[in-house]
Amino acid sequence: MSAKAIYIGVVGVGGVGSHFLSQLSKLPNAPSLVLIARSSQTLTSPAPSYQAIPPADWQSAFSSGSFTKSEAWSPEQIATYLSGVPGRAILVDNTSDPTIANSYPIFTSKGISIVTPNKKAFSSSLQLWKDIFSTAAANNALVYHESTVGAGLPVLSTLRDLVNTGDKVTRIEGVFSGTLSFLFNQFSSPSPSTAGEKKKWSEVVSKAKELGYTEPDPRDDLNGMDVARKLTILARIAGLEVESPDSFPIESLIPGELAKLEAGPKGTEEFMRLLPDFDGKMDDLQQKAEASGKVLRYVGSIDVPEKVVKVGLQSFDKDSAMAGLKGSDNIISFYTERYGKLPLIVQGGGAGGAVTAMGVMSDLIKVLERLR
Amino acid sequence: MSAKAIYIGVVGVGGVGSHFLSQLSKLPNAPSLVLIARSSQTLTSPAPSYQAIPPADWQSAFSSGSFTKSEAWSPEQIATYLSGVPGRAILVDNTSDPTIANSYPIFTSKGISIVTPNKKAFSSSLQLWKDIFSTAAANNALVYHESTVGAGLPVLSTLRDLVNTGDKVTRIEGVFSGTLSFLFNQFSSPSPSTAGEKKKWSEVVSKAKELGYTEPDPRDDLNGMDVARKLTILARIAGLEVESPDSFPIESLIPGELAKLEAGPKGTEEFMRLLPDFDGKMDDLQQKAEASGKVLRYVGSIDVPEKVVKVGLQSFDKDSAMAGLKGSDNIISFYTERYGKLPLIVQGGGAGGAVTAMGVMSDLIKVLERLR
Repeated sequence: MSAKAIYIGVVGVGGVGSHFLSQLSKLPNAPSLVLIARSSQTLTSPAPSYQAIPPADWQSAFSSGSFTKSEAWSPEQIATYLSGVPGRAILVDNTSDPTIANSYPIFTSKGISIVTPNKKAFSSSLQLWKDIFSTAAANNALVYHESTVGAGLPVLSTLRDLVNTGDKVTRIEGVFSGTLSFLFNQFSSPSPSTAGEKKKWSEVVSKAKELGYTEPDPRDDLNGMDVARKLTILARIAGLEVESPDSFPIESLIPGELAKLEAGPKGTEEFMRLLPDFDGKMDDLQQKAEASGKVLRYVGSIDVPEKVVKVGLQSFDKDSAMAGLKGSDNIISFYTERYGKLPLIVQGGGAGGAVTAMGVMSDLIKVLERLR
Repeated sequence: MSAKAIYIGVVGVGGVGSHFLSQLSKLPNAPSLVLIARSSQTLTSPAPSYQAIPPADWQSAFSSGSFTKSEAWSPEQIATYLSGVPGRAILVDNTSDPTIANSYPIFTSKGISIVTPNKKAFSSSLQLWKDIFSTAAANNALVYHESTVGAGLPVLSTLRDLVNTGDKVTRIEGVFSGTLSFLFNQFSSPSPSTAGEKKKWSEVVSKAKELGYTEPDPRDDLNGMDVARKLTILARIAGLEVESPDSFPIESLIPGELAKLEAGPKGTEEFMRLLPDFDGKMDDLQQKAEASGKVLRYVGSIDVPEKVVKVGLQSFDKDSAMAGLKGSDNIISFYTERYGKLPLIVQGGGAGGAVTAMGVMSDLIKVLERLR
């Protein structure tokens, strides 16, 4: 509880990273920022003073002479540097890079705590998950990754509270992708649609792409992998030993006939050009749902006692919380023994730089509280 | 982070307290339970061994010879005992007693941390709030009270995360009482009611009382004070210096003509007998709401920039989350600068021994993580 010297290194200064550094500059009693790694360069504060890099002015710090500028460092180099500080060290990984994620055990083995929105480390092989948490426990390192599911929404912390206090989580169900939320809230709305305003699936996807609501390649949203990674993380916290995000059924929204288009911008263009040919199938599904008073949603679900994890389309009653979803909101329902028939629900924006960085920052604050 | 000896004293073994002790008995690496105080007796573990009282068998521990049985202790006596343990001490107050709540600064001044669902300490005078948190900060004591609002739902932790990471909370709005949620979900349902199934307000109250969904005296729910106390806590965390729960408007659902009935069972009986005379007024409100496609809900709201706190009846669109509320669920919406137009929403059961104890237990786990 007495204030100990704590140092942090930040990897990634993109959408999340820049918001994080801005939030860090306003944090009272902030830890000393001693490393900033971007794809091409690494800035470090030299020993033995380890003078703090000002988070608000990190860009000019790169050109000032006070700090050491190096080429891109490997995760090993970053871990070695951070393990040399005269106090506790925290790695804040604001990337979605699998290379650094695969190296987390190198950090935790050295007692370096980790705070990150990077899903890769927690949704790849089960062995990596086990390596991270076992080396962390053995070396007094903490690992917090709230923003890997639902960005700043209190999803993982809520699930961990339920599990740690001995509640039995029976089912987790939700819309875990802001993009797929937006697409289906548009395509399959609970308010009765007149023939004139009925939207074709390909048009909805196209418009979302224009608005920047999808990844540059919409197939990265439509293949369901992002949702599958989030489900993998939740299932593991709930106690299921999910081997990888490929080890359960994922219903891809990429038509089978288009699955073999090449990756990259050319393939994306071809995909968007051909997508209207498949509007009929999505229309059929939507009309079938509507005929029974329902709407379509792309959901992930985990049946804990049955150990079944699923990602795909489902229909929901028009007066359900799922149907009432707005904008690009996420919704996550936890069904547990203590809560009974009605679930504990968390809902809200689950994507975007500011709220993702907020999840990272609130994790950092908790790690600081525990290390100090 | 290295395991230090931690001792806890538990006050109150009623609905929440007994669930808490049961959950404690299953907690891995549980702290040593050395004191149990009930209204008439106090059981303590004698110095210098401070042998742990088994939480699962606390009732038989009262009759075993291994522990010291005393009369009811004052808060000062409990604080003196807990400050004598050879390690860190935590008070878990599972009562709703104002006497011990008023004495929290005695505990925090001695470095004793506090975990509690007792609203009284945090919703009485602003001076008491300040005394608790300033003495806690000065003496390295931690104070966690998640269950004072929404029981085990992540309400206060979410609000603190928003505030601590620098988001600007603009508005908090919600249904904060399980009882009033149940009453209005019955009385003013969004599904079109036929004349035959329309319920009279007094009948709904009467039935809820029979089912044990209200306090023994329903006036304790209908006066809005419980909601006002929760709003006081939220407003203070959001940064408003609310003097007391009496310092903002509370719309009581007790008809003015019945306000002077005496307290106690005789007054309760008289109240229930006379309530049907006032069904007309509630019917008018309900019909007015229904005529404009809305439902009635009893809500609390905080406008942070305008510093306005309000508790009372409001009408909401039938397709809103407020209208869709089921059972006795609470719902809490946080509108913030980062989340934009759509709020961050937490919803679920906000009352009952098991989930309230869960909130206390998850707080205790967090305090243990920070003290160890």
